[in-house]
Amino acid sequence: MFAVEKLIELALEEDIGPGDITTAHLIKPDQQGQAHIIAKEPLVLAGLDIARRVFKSLNPNIQFIPLASDGDEIAAAATIVEVTGGMQTLLTGERTALNFLQRLSGIATMVREYVQVVAMHNIQLVDTRKTTPGWRVLEKYAVRIGGAANHRMGLYDGVLIKDNHIAACGGIAVAVRTARKAVSHLVKIEVETSDLDQVQQALDAGADVIMLDNMNFEQIKAAMAKIAGRALVEVSGGIRKDQLVALAQTGVDMLSIGALTHSACSVDMSMQITAD
Amino acid sequence: MFAVEKLIELALEEDIGPGDITTAHLIKPDQQGQAHIIAKEPLVLAGLDIARRVFKSLNPNIQFIPLASDGDEIAAAATIVEVTGGMQTLLTGERTALNFLQRLSGIATMVREYVQVVAMHNIQLVDTRKTTPGWRVLEKYAVRIGGAANHRMGLYDGVLIKDNHIAACGGIAVAVRTARKAVSHLVKIEVETSDLDQVQQALDAGADVIMLDNMNFEQIKAAMAKIAGRALVEVSGGIRKDQLVALAQTGVDMLSIGALTHSACSVDMSMQITAD
Amino acid sequence: MFAVEKLIELALEEDIGPGDITTAHLIKPDQQGQAHIIAKEPLVLAGLDIARRVFKSLNPNIQFIPLASDGDEIAAAATIVEVTGGMQTLLTGERTALNFLQRLSGIATMVREYVQVVAMHNIQLVDTRKTTPGWRVLEKYAVRIGGAANHRMGLYDGVLIKDNHIAACGGIAVAVRTARKAVSHLVKIEVETSDLDQVQQALDAGADVIMLDNMNFEQIKAAMAKIAGRALVEVSGGIRKDQLVALAQTGVDMLSIGALTHSACSVDMSMQITAD
Amino acid sequence: MFAVEKLIELALEEDIGPGDITTAHLIKPDQQGQAHIIAKEPLVLAGLDIARRVFKSLNPNIQFIPLASDGDEIAAAATIVEVTGGMQTLLTGERTALNFLQRLSGIATMVREYVQVVAMHNIQLVDTRKTTPGWRVLEKYAVRIGGAANHRMGLYDGVLIKDNHIAACGGIAVAVRTARKAVSHLVKIEVETSDLDQVQQALDAGADVIMLDNMNFEQIKAAMAKIAGRALVEVSGGIRKDQLVALAQTGVDMLSIGALTHSACSVDMSMQITAD
Amino acid sequence: MFAVEKLIELALEEDIGPGDITTAHLIKPDQQGQAHIIAKEPLVLAGLDIARRVFKSLNPNIQFIPLASDGDEIAAAATIVEVTGGMQTLLTGERTALNFLQRLSGIATMVREYVQVVAMHNIQLVDTRKTTPGWRVLEKYAVRIGGAANHRMGLYDGVLIKDNHIAACGGIAVAVRTARKAVSHLVKIEVETSDLDQVQQALDAGADVIMLDNMNFEQIKAAMAKIAGRALVEVSGGIRKDQLVALAQTGVDMLSIGALTHSACSVDMSMQITAD
Amino acid sequence: MFAVEKLIELALEEDIGPGDITTAHLIKPDQQGQAHIIAKEPLVLAGLDIARRVFKSLNPNIQFIPLASDGDEIAAAATIVEVTGGMQTLLTGERTALNFLQRLSGIATMVREYVQVVAMHNIQLVDTRKTTPGWRVLEKYAVRIGGAANHRMGLYDGVLIKDNHIAACGGIAVAVRTARKAVSHLVKIEVETSDLDQVQQALDAGADVIMLDNMNFEQIKAAMAKIAGRALVEVSGGIRKDQLVALAQTGVDMLSIGALTHSACSVDMSMQITAD
Repeated sequence: MFAVEKLIELALEEDIGPGDITTAHLIKPDQQGQAHIIAKEPLVLAGLDIARRVFKSLNPNIQFIPLASDGDEIAAAATIVEVTGGMQTLLTGERTALNFLQRLSGIATMVREYVQVVAMHNIQLVDTRKTTPGWRVLEKYAVRIGGAANHRMGLYDGVLIKDNHIAACGGIAVAVRTARKAVSHLVKIEVETSDLDQVQQALDAGADVIMLDNMNFEQIKAAMAKIAGRALVEVSGGIRKDQLVALAQTGVDMLSIGALTHSACSVDMSMQITAD
Repeated sequence: MFAVEKLIELALEEDIGPGDITTAHLIKPDQQGQAHIIAKEPLVLAGLDIARRVFKSLNPNIQFIPLASDGDEIAAAATIVEVTGGMQTLLTGERTALNFLQRLSGIATMVREYVQVVAMHNIQLVDTRKTTPGWRVLEKYAVRIGGAANHRMGLYDGVLIKDNHIAACGGIAVAVRTARKAVSHLVKIEVETSDLDQVQQALDAGADVIMLDNMNFEQIKAAMAKIAGRALVEVSGGIRKDQLVALAQTGVDMLSIGALTHSACSVDMSMQITAD
Repeated sequence: MFAVEKLIELALEEDIGPGDITTAHLIKPDQQGQAHIIAKEPLVLAGLDIARRVFKSLNPNIQFIPLASDGDEIAAAATIVEVTGGMQTLLTGERTALNFLQRLSGIATMVREYVQVVAMHNIQLVDTRKTTPGWRVLEKYAVRIGGAANHRMGLYDGVLIKDNHIAACGGIAVAVRTARKAVSHLVKIEVETSDLDQVQQALDAGADVIMLDNMNFEQIKAAMAKIAGRALVEVSGGIRKDQLVALAQTGVDMLSIGALTHSACSVDMSMQITAD
Repeated sequence: MFAVEKLIELALEEDIGPGDITTAHLIKPDQQGQAHIIAKEPLVLAGLDIARRVFKSLNPNIQFIPLASDGDEIAAAATIVEVTGGMQTLLTGERTALNFLQRLSGIATMVREYVQVVAMHNIQLVDTRKTTPGWRVLEKYAVRIGGAANHRMGLYDGVLIKDNHIAACGGIAVAVRTARKAVSHLVKIEVETSDLDQVQQALDAGADVIMLDNMNFEQIKAAMAKIAGRALVEVSGGIRKDQLVALAQTGVDMLSIGALTHSACSVDMSMQITAD
Repeated sequence: MFAVEKLIELALEEDIGPGDITTAHLIKPDQQGQAHIIAKEPLVLAGLDIARRVFKSLNPNIQFIPLASDGDEIAAAATIVEVTGGMQTLLTGERTALNFLQRLSGIATMVREYVQVVAMHNIQLVDTRKTTPGWRVLEKYAVRIGGAANHRMGLYDGVLIKDNHIAACGGIAVAVRTARKAVSHLVKIEVETSDLDQVQQALDAGADVIMLDNMNFEQIKAAMAKIAGRALVEVSGGIRKDQLVALAQTGVDMLSIGALTHSACSVDMSMQITAD
Repeated sequence: MFAVEKLIELALEEDIGPGDITTAHLIKPDQQGQAHIIAKEPLVLAGLDIARRVFKSLNPNIQFIPLASDGDEIAAAATIVEVTGGMQTLLTGERTALNFLQRLSGIATMVREYVQVVAMHNIQLVDTRKTTPGWRVLEKYAVRIGGAANHRMGLYDGVLIKDNHIAACGGIAVAVRTARKAVSHLVKIEVETSDLDQVQQALDAGADVIMLDNMNFEQIKAAMAKIAGRALVEVSGGIRKDQLVALAQTGVDMLSIGALTHSACSVDMSMQITAD
């Protein structure tokens, strides 16, 4: 929430700087207008509140009237939002508001496609920390809007023990035990494993979640047999859309997919403005 | 430069928050290590300095030794950077540094592909303001590294008169005249036009640059004949890679392409860490 | 970590403001000195790194040489730290550094006393969110140094479902299910209960942790019998030091005690400065 | 005033971070409620405005209706404030608002007890700079509410010459003269003395205020005879509550007591919330 | 726009700090009053919006009613603004609001005098970057209000190639070519020249603007003959008011004058306050 | 001290923004150079440390070697500072460093002239709060360097009771008594008076300082007779340089002069840079 305010401020500062010299000199301060944000391709909407805050940051008197909600599937040419108020604000805020809305809706749209592939399966798709720096909270929100779930928000709200941590501690057992003692009892502990031997150790150590990293289908199946419900199981590592169903059928609990955030493109929108 | 510092700070805060609870508790503060950032696909490198500053922000004593330079074409599996120093810093900074480097290199890589298509033509590809909010300076830098040029940085360093500005002023002539008087003599004035009549008016008004927005080839050719070198000419509007050569052959000065930033994906890299 | 920097900056700004007018005018900028921070009563030390950063913020050239470590039990009259460098810095930073060190050591000292009472029992003492606003990360650190454990750091890294949440959702079952779906799989879910019926519901809902809030010993024992190891159990509510052993004997997993932070007083220290 | 805003922001950031994950997911944004803040022990109230600003920072539409005023003596079980508005805001802001209110009221309550001891004597109790870092303005306000007076706010609004300053300048006379010339004529000069000889020197130098530091009753009486009304006299140094009356009878002008801030504990309050 | 907010905040912080101790203790919070800002000498008004924002920052409920507009010539003794609302706000904000208004109006007044000298000539007076640090946007605004024009806002929105740049690049031709390629096509390129040879090189290189720096009238005339309308011409270098007409008659396009900002004094105003 | 850091940051941001586009593209990052800051008229130097910090903020490796000290009288053409290091830093920092140095030296120079007029008299010249917003600490420093003294730094470190305060309280007596009780005993109380009757009341109330505001010589002499050394006396109100001696001869303690800061102009300096 607060990080989002800083990002909006940063975005407006970098675009406007000492002033929108075209608008400030050509549009009278009291000129009123109305704008419509329109989808130029089918999309899943995400980011309405950010777009609203962009305009409100510039001018608290602006009216921002959504005609749809985050999570809605929007048809091409549909109007998403009506914005009315000072013409200077509409013109100055247009690009920044659209840049936010297009990227977040781009993520939600792509996530929705992935989620629908496994809709019939009992599996969760989750994001990663491979988000755009500065956008963590927003992109994780768009992922939820798209229908997937969030992995930890950052390095502070979940323990994920990787090979370097294990090596430095002298083994999975001691790493899990040390972490358990050091962190809040409300935080779970996940161990990243790359072979069946590590899976066994993580299980013995009482890990809450076991990540199977870059394992093939044979390994995943063997790991599932070994774990037998005693820990949550996450599969990770360059997962492609065409592998989702097969992975879902292994019975693992969740698939973590960096592409949900790092490979989403903006969807196309435009804002049409008319003076009163 | 200063916006970049704020973005780095925001990125580290959102990822680390009150602390990297895995690393802080499992790795000893004096444990040293070394890391190698490796390309996992062919790419054009951009963002080394940001990656360096991410690690230095966490720990000024870290050594960051680039083995390549921004703009270099890197082969898959090549090592890009060696980072040595405190193991905690390497582990805590890894993801944020990679997130910056992968996105900026993704832009540079895509831009390079576009630029190579028209390498034999006398035309400039330029970016737009369709950048990731908060990333303006960085993404425009990656565009230059890729080989394209920058349009204005923001609303403050160039006048771009659009239809709403024109309508509000009562015509192109008065809009250009008003703007010319109001802004620094070092700032040029560009007019966005959607038909030949507007092109003529912009020309008569003495616009420095005329943008042909969403015109077809016939219109572009007619506009070029009319302008005849008396203003720079920019073509804009959903330009696809397969149109670049044909557009270049019309003789216009530049093509502005939002996709260079809003549709670039991250390229793949990893960081391999070993303890001393 | 970053919140701590803001707090140190705030602390120096509020004390120094536009300048230490006594020191700036009476002490020459090149005058050197040395200072010793001395315990004036027995204490458990916590906060060395903060004290160091206070002086370093004022002057990076200051030498800060600890003679003990956080967590050490310090005897009255023992020297804790030697600080050498510019006399102006020593005098200007003295009070702020001591204010941090005395309060954090005060917490660690009190926590250690509580912990020792139950040293022979298999129970964890944990803190709460009843910390001094602005000091959360520091005070939770002092609690760990004292030997107790941390509950969640804030509202973001653990789910704690209270009566208002339950009422708003229509019951414990739906509240737990809704939360489980919405948050990262690395975050556990705790339910606050005030009677045995709620304990049963929390258990049925699959809560990871069950808090017994303001229950008497009879209720606690009955709850333990019901839960039978299927969830972690936390007891909460105005726990006094003289109740610790009896509560430990009930077999609950942890006792959360607000007094560890909200009722700790500063321990006494002084800083003795001599000019070179 | 501005420092207070930064502290409130810091407090909300550290508690809420990327979001109150329990409330955000379990309580609907449009759910309304009302809350009552209740004293759980007798106390002197301080900090209403801070509590109000905590809720208003989260949501400007919240209604905050005090039923008492700062400085009032509140009975156990009395309601202090009614807060109504969005349920999410009530739940998310509860702990931070209480943490501020409980600590500030704790100080006011303790100060009031000290002040009442000497109510019949013509003496002022004053605080010190031994305040919680980040809380200077707030804690000094609570001291005034409790009935004591403030010493200087920081290092910038009063000159207090200590032994190190004296040594560095070559004596009390030159130190006072140097300071008098350097600082605004609206700022008084106080000299810390540890024996009668220093008292005489401070008097001769024209100090506005003389502090008798850690002197016994004999010394204090002798100093008073020497000073004979030619300077204000402050007594300082580990003053206990049971010494207040005897010290007041010496006729000194004020007693400065660090314990008023560094040894105050929070008083107990709770907030009871009901949904509409 | 955003820099201005930071400056207002800085200004209020430095004046008020932890509190206006006279007003806070002597004026009741609910006391209302009205104030009139009055010109004490003839002046050109600039800065109304800043004065308004100073009062609104302290108290959003204040009423700020201008009786004149920026750019108006105000007679001595005329009332400029009426401000009504809380008496504390009026007293606390008075000096900061006046300090802004007096300095900006001082600049506008001086600029207006310069502009009127050449009112009959076809020449533009422009400012420089010799502005008060922190005040760039405000002072450049006051210059426009006075009737002169702005040179570039900063180092980012115009290229000005000086002797050091030329030397480092190996000549004017390569410097202009390199800059042209590197910056946005909306940014013009100016070359600073000190003799006719450099003027010729700048012309050959295609500079958009040529600055004649510290040249005498003979040189300026020769340069004008050489340039013959192929570039804009700016004359610079310690220009005095009594030289304006002669310089205007040379036919150059603009005169840049640092004195417009660095040598303007505040004009005299006062604020008269009466309690309701 | 901290306000100064914010002002330097603001100054660099406003000038450089997203980058010095001339220098960044024309000067190689590793090009070294040296610069000399030279006085172009006789002046009293002030602000060396700020100039140093401007360059160090841009690049910590820069060498800044002063050849004179703040307070020195510098002859025209004398070299003040040598700065060596990266050429980009020298060029980018030049104007901001000079802008600070020229304004602060301008104040010191003007103050020195005023001070020398009354050098033979026992009177103090003091500044006011009529400083450039954002520059309070710096300008008050330059005043001291020039040889005058500082009035209070802001509204927080001295009580100055004006007519509105008096009216609101019901008289001078109650105003002084109320203030005395409310503020630290280290802060003095000054009363602004406009006639002899008010002088008498201020005296009776025990004001520490009495300001004679806009009184004529007769009134001042009568006031001095009345006060007879029982309070410090300050004369205020549009004091001109040619009145200083006559005012000094009245025997008042100090003259406060707004012109020392609000009417000082920059002195002329230049920076000459040569590449290595």
